[in-house]
Amino acid sequence: MDIISQLTSVLTDRRDADPAQSYVASLYADGTNKILEKVGEEATEVILAAKDTTHGTPDAALIGEVADLWFHTLVMLVHLGQDPQEVLDTLAERFGISGHTEKATRDT
Amino acid sequence: MDIISQLTSVLTDRRDADPAQSYVASLYADGTNKILEKVGEEATEVILAAKDTTHGTPDAALIGEVADLWFHTLVMLVHLGQDPQEVLDTLAERFGISGHTEKATRDT
Amino acid sequence: MDIISQLTSVLTDRRDADPAQSYVASLYADGTNKILEKVGEEATEVILAAKDTTHGTPDAALIGEVADLWFHTLVMLVHLGQDPQEVLDTLAERFGISGHTEKATRDT
Amino acid sequence: MDIISQLTSVLTDRRDADPAQSYVASLYADGTNKILEKVGEEATEVILAAKDTTHGTPDAALIGEVADLWFHTLVMLVHLGQDPQEVLDTLAERFGISGHTEKATRDT
Repeated sequence: MDIISQLTSVLTDRRDADPAQSYVASLYADGTNKILEKVGEEATEVILAAKDTTHGTPDAALIGEVADLWFHTLVMLVHLGQDPQEVLDTLAERFGISGHTEKATRDT
Repeated sequence: MDIISQLTSVLTDRRDADPAQSYVASLYADGTNKILEKVGEEATEVILAAKDTTHGTPDAALIGEVADLWFHTLVMLVHLGQDPQEVLDTLAERFGISGHTEKATRDT
Repeated sequence: MDIISQLTSVLTDRRDADPAQSYVASLYADGTNKILEKVGEEATEVILAAKDTTHGTPDAALIGEVADLWFHTLVMLVHLGQDPQEVLDTLAERFGISGHTEKATRDT
Repeated sequence: MDIISQLTSVLTDRRDADPAQSYVASLYADGTNKILEKVGEEATEVILAAKDTTHGTPDAALIGEVADLWFHTLVMLVHLGQDPQEVLDTLAERFGISGHTEKATRDT
């Protein structure tokens, strides 16, 4: 199982977690606006880290910021009852890459 | 090979493509600011599509907007010489999920 | 009359303009999401221009980008039936600066 | 003197303030990236508040969010040694509105 699927499964489980114990559960409890604020925030941090990378300052933070951005979009999708696998399938389809459909075929 | 790896490979190949023939090559040619403008734009479109979803309007566009956002962050990483797989590894590590390291072990 | 008030009056007039003839009227016609996409886009361009300024490249574009951002927030407020003067009043109030209320007093 | 000019003067004074005592001085001390993160954050909050307004929920917060966004762009301009009045002049020029130049004439 790939990382996005495993992470989706972790994020789905956190729906039953205590917001006082789990960051993800606290985001779900705060609601959609709070989660979308985080998406906007992390997008800005990606842009800043990318600019710092291009100006000669090696910036190891860029990978971490992209991870934060993808992570919060995953939280958003799970919170809104959507399946992140569909994002990968959409990308696969657009680029003629073997995605979910082919895997399903392979499984049979 | 998972979708992100395959897509990374496609995006790396597009470095040698003609900007007049390939959207990705035209982004590389326009440079980092242009790519980051697209990241900012797509983040905003994700937020708007998510809000429309929460207000009772079923919005099939949300998955497509997240795909656009992830896609342009991948273009950005490849343009800046970074490996998108490291983003997945970072997420795997944070969540104690079997990522790159375990796969490497499994391969041996 | 200050520039924000005059601009508000211009933007209010454009409600009756032909979208084919006026950029502002075309934004009103496209609706709130389109206007908010522009707000997000211009915020990103401000951030990029500001970063370029800090990296030794004199960037005359920064002032222009902030003008674009403020402009599209004004279009948004007028489109949503809100008075931009209230934004200035809010800022004045927060900083104990003489704003609308005092001006009203002075006028009498 | 208009509100933007007065606020610029307050923000310029805060350069000498103690970061432990003044929010603006703490932003200057944290530096450009921190200020730009706030600009990105406030832009997202404007977009969310605007969407909430359009969905039937009266949202008094929108004016406050636009005030926050303009405020942080003013902090950014002063931090980078730029004059916010030039933003108003740029807007005035674009719309053929009487701005700084005419005021200067009137003063003589």
